[in-house]
Amino acid sequence: MTKIVVIGGVAGGMSAAARARRLDENASIIVLDKGPYVSFANCGLPYHVSGEIPSRDSLLLHTPETLRAQLNLDVRVNSEVTRINREERTVTVNGPEGTYTLGYDTLIYSPGSKAATPPVTGLDHASVHWLRTVPEMDGLIARIEGRSEFDAVVVGAGFIGLEAVEALAHRGGRVTLVEFAPHVLPPLDSEQAEWVDRELRKHGVRVVTGTSVEAISDANGAARVRLSTGEVLPADLVVMSTGVIPDSSLAKDAGLELGLRGAIVVDGYLRTSDPHIFAMGDAAAMRQEIGDGDLIAPVPLAAPANRHGRRAADAAVLGIGRAADRVDDAHQAPRVLGTAIVRVFDLTAALTGANRRTLSAQEVDHITVHVHPADHAGYFPGAEQMHITAHFAKDTGELLGAQIVGGAGVANRINVFATALKARMTANDLADLDLAYAPPFGSAKDPVNMTAFVAQNILTGQMPVWYSEDLEQVAREALILDVRSATECEDGMIPGALNIPHTEVRDRIEEIRKASAGRWIAVHCASGVRSYLATRILIGHGFDARNLSGGALTLDVTRPDWKQNPS
Amino acid sequence: MTKIVVIGGVAGGMSAAARARRLDENASIIVLDKGPYVSFANCGLPYHVSGEIPSRDSLLLHTPETLRAQLNLDVRVNSEVTRINREERTVTVNGPEGTYTLGYDTLIYSPGSKAATPPVTGLDHASVHWLRTVPEMDGLIARIEGRSEFDAVVVGAGFIGLEAVEALAHRGGRVTLVEFAPHVLPPLDSEQAEWVDRELRKHGVRVVTGTSVEAISDANGAARVRLSTGEVLPADLVVMSTGVIPDSSLAKDAGLELGLRGAIVVDGYLRTSDPHIFAMGDAAAMRQEIGDGDLIAPVPLAAPANRHGRRAADAAVLGIGRAADRVDDAHQAPRVLGTAIVRVFDLTAALTGANRRTLSAQEVDHITVHVHPADHAGYFPGAEQMHITAHFAKDTGELLGAQIVGGAGVANRINVFATALKARMTANDLADLDLAYAPPFGSAKDPVNMTAFVAQNILTGQMPVWYSEDLEQVAREALILDVRSATECEDGMIPGALNIPHTEVRDRIEEIRKASAGRWIAVHCASGVRSYLATRILIGHGFDARNLSGGALTLDVTRPDWKQNPS
Repeated sequence: MTKIVVIGGVAGGMSAAARARRLDENASIIVLDKGPYVSFANCGLPYHVSGEIPSRDSLLLHTPETLRAQLNLDVRVNSEVTRINREERTVTVNGPEGTYTLGYDTLIYSPGSKAATPPVTGLDHASVHWLRTVPEMDGLIARIEGRSEFDAVVVGAGFIGLEAVEALAHRGGRVTLVEFAPHVLPPLDSEQAEWVDRELRKHGVRVVTGTSVEAISDANGAARVRLSTGEVLPADLVVMSTGVIPDSSLAKDAGLELGLRGAIVVDGYLRTSDPHIFAMGDAAAMRQEIGDGDLIAPVPLAAPANRHGRRAADAAVLGIGRAADRVDDAHQAPRVLGTAIVRVFDLTAALTGANRRTLSAQEVDHITVHVHPADHAGYFPGAEQMHITAHFAKDTGELLGAQIVGGAGVANRINVFATALKARMTANDLADLDLAYAPPFGSAKDPVNMTAFVAQNILTGQMPVWYSEDLEQVAREALILDVRSATECEDGMIPGALNIPHTEVRDRIEEIRKASAGRWIAVHCASGVRSYLATRILIGHGFDARNLSGGALTLDVTRPDWKQNPS
Repeated sequence: MTKIVVIGGVAGGMSAAARARRLDENASIIVLDKGPYVSFANCGLPYHVSGEIPSRDSLLLHTPETLRAQLNLDVRVNSEVTRINREERTVTVNGPEGTYTLGYDTLIYSPGSKAATPPVTGLDHASVHWLRTVPEMDGLIARIEGRSEFDAVVVGAGFIGLEAVEALAHRGGRVTLVEFAPHVLPPLDSEQAEWVDRELRKHGVRVVTGTSVEAISDANGAARVRLSTGEVLPADLVVMSTGVIPDSSLAKDAGLELGLRGAIVVDGYLRTSDPHIFAMGDAAAMRQEIGDGDLIAPVPLAAPANRHGRRAADAAVLGIGRAADRVDDAHQAPRVLGTAIVRVFDLTAALTGANRRTLSAQEVDHITVHVHPADHAGYFPGAEQMHITAHFAKDTGELLGAQIVGGAGVANRINVFATALKARMTANDLADLDLAYAPPFGSAKDPVNMTAFVAQNILTGQMPVWYSEDLEQVAREALILDVRSATECEDGMIPGALNIPHTEVRDRIEEIRKASAGRWIAVHCASGVRSYLATRILIGHGFDARNLSGGALTLDVTRPDWKQNPS
């Protein structure tokens, strides 16, 4: 009888345990968790804080009893493993009834992560809470229970931080969000994060970026939160969401190979450097079997943890090269793209693959596309605009990453991009994607197709572009030609720009030639569509014309001075 | 100056014309359309009938004037091409001011399709309408204008037929839907079409399948519609939506190569057998450059027509092997998967790739997966169930086709499947897809991942299955084991089935052994999940056990006798 011991009873660990049982009815499978709950919906915690998920019980998907009845698992809560003894293949467990030793043939190690705690004094104040486990959630709710209004400071504007902000605002909190990075949702490119920032402010959240928390002190039971700017914020509640680090101390003590941020290094089948130990989830990072096999940073997301738990059980129980491996690429490591999505009030923000910072750091030569399509046909009621930023390799046209902020249809398109990334699709492939279209659901040229069309135009030189971050230099060396209507221009123009509506460009070529005085023409409109037409007309007349990627909609969000500068 | 003549001013033709202008500012581009409108939203017509799109003008996306102003196109409506003279590269045009000849360097031929008219007498009756053009829509609306209730017969239950049914029901019509095929939405597999059938009936629509219309006669201005069953239906309005055939008569007269259903054969760049003539949209069909280069049937959908118009202009204006062709597969034909989606009252039905009928006809050895996941985490409010049927190649595990019927999230997942199909992904690839997850948007194991997991289990023999269509034979040779709860079984069971809840299977193995009397065990539950666990337990105990694909949810829709047969 095979003995399988699983450390960690959520996401990866529980997926592995359940799959192992389905693969081997006769194995002994013991799941150890140091907390009081297993298989709880950790991603649902913020929504119980908000009240949107009214029942706390609905977060507890399974109990040791249901797991025994359904899967014949031996689940032991409040049981912490204190040591992995690799030589004799045992773990030392500190449980409710004392300390004991368990033998294993296979050890599944999925303990998750620990909160990354910044150097802030006073984190032991009663107002300070985290939101990663059910007891932490309970404590947080107890802190604000019965208060119809309160002051809250959320530290960290990542996914969980934003979910906490929304939940607390929903409960009547006056929320200040403090983020050390230059903008909220740091994995997003800045022009996309700006939409999220606006949405937060629109809902009364104060957003403080580029700022850290230095100290938390007491004020009659409430907290005083001192920022690096010197400002002091009153707070009945402080929520810490400043990221996580792999909980790999046991693995380190046991001498397993560790990588970036102390994550346990695993191969495509989740095997650690010890063939009897598998790891996954927040504690592990996969060695990518692409390129030069570089180590990658751990990706602390629920979905890969769940999939990897299943995959690890397949590898452990069936042996490597399981019967499912019927295709060439089956031995290839799963490609963790870091696909993520978050709801921020009425907005949805999502991303997959690389962002500009990663591409710059890795010196990947790329082009960037900005488009602002509607989620479905514009003539059908209820169309909502989305903002897409996508990066493509300059040489091959391969998609490298995509980000979308908008309303309806964001999850749909980010999933298409994620699928395309896994398949290493190029702009040409995406241009031909045959996606679902009927007026309530899409457009004949889907937002993904549109993104690819623009990428093709840039890659082939059909549409030379300039980017909003280069505005100052562009303003010095080019004639800025604003091809929006005169009415639109009344709300503001780039200083020094010339306004000629796009339908008049053909007839006013000589006027443009005179105004340009030999300079290149930096064309723009609101979203980049009309200015593309104008750019092509100008190129057809021999001008060096380039189009502002994403138009004023992109420029605007990155240039707060725009509105104040009507010409 | 290059002369480009475009025949057909919607979808493919207008996309080609607009793209050609953007590629060549100096070309002469003339667009000829025999109707009074160009660039109208033909997919939106049913939604103006319903009133959901209130403004008729919003369907008219462009006029000859706006196209002149924006794109310098010479658009001529009410101008029918009566002949293509390939030798001298001219077309003969019959326009408002008489007949004339136009020369071309490149001819873009995108006239669309004609309604496929079944052999029904009386189609000239005033009650009989089609819904393919703006004038046809106007006529249809005029027929029912001012009536708060009326009898309508819709003939043909394809996409447009269903949209017409919904629109007419919305306006107060008592609607009967008549379909010649055995079920509504013939491109769907029968078990999926059944959900659509139920939704129609739920909203008061009478559905008559396997039946044709034989004759339409007059009854005091209204119509009498005689069916092949002998039944006669009264009708104030008859809507014909019995499919389309390519409008390729000009191409035929000009000697261009035609294929299936008379469609013009084009290559991956939309070139016809005449290098100066390109064709796309409903009139054309692409020779697939995969396999043995078989001809395929035309795919009369708006989205491929739009994309192909753009692609044809690239090929025509830039020449074949346009600069964008930086990747190996760029010369490969776009893969038209026939991805389609339709809203039917509160339900959404979508499909991509091959269905069971196609796979059987082509003798492709495949397995089929049925799953019924929720669109997002079950513990988050508002989760809606979807029903997925997916086909995979038995040898390689390659995805061959997928269909989804449900509520929220259907468009999202059909687009993932469509993208995966284009990339020729396998079940293993889909199992590792890194899709967006947060409780409002998905599940840690996305419906697409779940579909792939089940496919892996079937392909590897981990989960032997039986299918609902084999019930009669299964009932003769196997013990049917229903592992739902006793309460669920009160609503009905398969006659002769034994009920043992899945959590009791381990303890009641000997009881099952006795009942089976050496037969194999046909396990089932409601959706196929609990019965999968039971199947694995039984296999672990040495039984030949197989799981009902999709469970009672799939069986039920295909077996109307189910409810009437409690054991």
